[in-house]
Amino acid sequence: MSPIDTDQYVEGVLAGNRRLLSKAITLIESALDIHKQEAREVVSRLLPHSGQAVRLGITGVPGVGKSTFIESLGMFLIRQGHKVAVLAVDPSSTRSGGSIMADKTRMEQLATQADAYIRPSPSGGTLGGVARKTRETMIACEASGFDVMIVETVGVGQSETTVASMVDFFLVLMLAGAGDELQGIKKGVLELADAIAITKADGDNIDKALKARQSYEYALHLLAPASPEWHPPVLTCSARTMEGVDRIWETVHKHRSIVAASGALTANRHQQALAWLQDLLDDGLRERFLRHPGIQAQLPHYQREVVDGRISPTAAAEALLFLLDNPKSL
Amino acid sequence: MSPIDTDQYVEGVLAGNRRLLSKAITLIESALDIHKQEAREVVSRLLPHSGQAVRLGITGVPGVGKSTFIESLGMFLIRQGHKVAVLAVDPSSTRSGGSIMADKTRMEQLATQADAYIRPSPSGGTLGGVARKTRETMIACEASGFDVMIVETVGVGQSETTVASMVDFFLVLMLAGAGDELQGIKKGVLELADAIAITKADGDNIDKALKARQSYEYALHLLAPASPEWHPPVLTCSARTMEGVDRIWETVHKHRSIVAASGALTANRHQQALAWLQDLLDDGLRERFLRHPGIQAQLPHYQREVVDGRISPTAAAEALLFLLDNPKSL
Repeated sequence: MSPIDTDQYVEGVLAGNRRLLSKAITLIESALDIHKQEAREVVSRLLPHSGQAVRLGITGVPGVGKSTFIESLGMFLIRQGHKVAVLAVDPSSTRSGGSIMADKTRMEQLATQADAYIRPSPSGGTLGGVARKTRETMIACEASGFDVMIVETVGVGQSETTVASMVDFFLVLMLAGAGDELQGIKKGVLELADAIAITKADGDNIDKALKARQSYEYALHLLAPASPEWHPPVLTCSARTMEGVDRIWETVHKHRSIVAASGALTANRHQQALAWLQDLLDDGLRERFLRHPGIQAQLPHYQREVVDGRISPTAAAEALLFLLDNPKSL
Repeated sequence: MSPIDTDQYVEGVLAGNRRLLSKAITLIESALDIHKQEAREVVSRLLPHSGQAVRLGITGVPGVGKSTFIESLGMFLIRQGHKVAVLAVDPSSTRSGGSIMADKTRMEQLATQADAYIRPSPSGGTLGGVARKTRETMIACEASGFDVMIVETVGVGQSETTVASMVDFFLVLMLAGAGDELQGIKKGVLELADAIAITKADGDNIDKALKARQSYEYALHLLAPASPEWHPPVLTCSARTMEGVDRIWETVHKHRSIVAASGALTANRHQQALAWLQDLLDDGLRERFLRHPGIQAQLPHYQREVVDGRISPTAAAEALLFLLDNPKSL
């Protein structure tokens, strides 16, 4: 196979060529320095062609029916003429043959659609690394003509905040009738929600779902102050009967009209881009710091001293930063 | 007045000399490089004598009766034989003669007690700077024999997370009968709470307070997953009748027994110290970065390019970090 050059990647992605889109994403995900360089070039050239899609983040703990929900929503959107890409942010995932299979099979119907593209989470690495790859993959998919980006996350770690910071609308799925327990959802996740959807609201479960809806509405009302523009609603839906899936999309749409009109959509995206830049800079600075031989030798010592109360954090930080500027002081 | 040397500061603070404690805190708060150096030395020597106190964070929006509550709690603790220091974290405060007066007069009774020490927020500067000073002031007060540290904050900004990260127990005060509005409290603050106390639960207000208590109990139950060890209770109190103030202290005490026995208290303090060190390092690295002449010249340009979508954040970060290592590349 002959190697693909930058022009081919860019033109292929822009032309909606799915094979080249997949190859471009593989390039974006590569850890090799030579690939990184080329990926940066490709992403930079695709960037001006991105940004028009609706970016929707979805989270929910295992068991909530997330895949089934995304499949239902995806099929609904495709029937409406949308092109839907589904990405994932899951820093714990290691991509084995098995997990790609799992990813494809868990959205069996959607995976076979010409207007859908499903890509599992980039494997391994830090949350920051996974997030960068997902953000750039989003740019590639948008440049390739997908107008709804769904970014899903598992709802039990730190990745929710990250996903919320790369989308326009963050949807939290909750289980109907899970009683009073919190279904393992992490502190603070509900506060990120632009809407909550109670899943599996069908059959015998409907009453429980409506009750859960009332409870969450009340709790959100009490604990999560609304912006003047938007108060997060609590909805119910069933992926099995498709009941409520349309309402959820209407809600996303309504939110979009409001924030687009007020300028909040643009402001939010600008703020997200600057925050992303700042994160990358902070990561880069921290990485350079940790790579410094003097720091590598001394950091564990100072951390121990701080934990044991033998040196104050201020004095330890001072000493370490001094070391960075004066490596010979060792 | 002859200058005070390091030994005098340390010995004075350890002997419980209040004048030297105040002078040491002034030294800690000084922005002069020569003072910073000496403060670091003083704090390092006091550090081994600190850490035994109960560290209690208290927040609540203006109008909730925070000063009155702290005064009541402080008087209650002093009658029980405790020595109580009250510090504040409020990055918006500018210390004028007037505001010190205000600080003293708002806790009139407590301010005159031999076993109480009230120190207003260090003035001006960033939240990080104010937080560092407050943390080091806490060390000085503890080394001087105060066994209850109360750190208060205003409840409307970002300082709550910071205060929660320097205490063992975080108490959120809420107003009884404020109806359905959220009384201006910031998103996420309630999730930091180890307990909520509904204030002004007296006279005609008692029914409203009990209702509010029920509502918050329910909402906390639903939205804020408890640790296996501790579920944040909702209490009521009146600073006027002193009703409930003892219960709040009992709650702090009970929490302490549990986390001390499980090892969570020590683990939490270790984690707080390491996080503080990491924050200081991040701040220091960011400061050095921003001080770099090449970065100063180029950062605004790259930020604009990122916001306008002409360059990806990854490429911008890369370029800026390259500039840091290769200033001649300009």
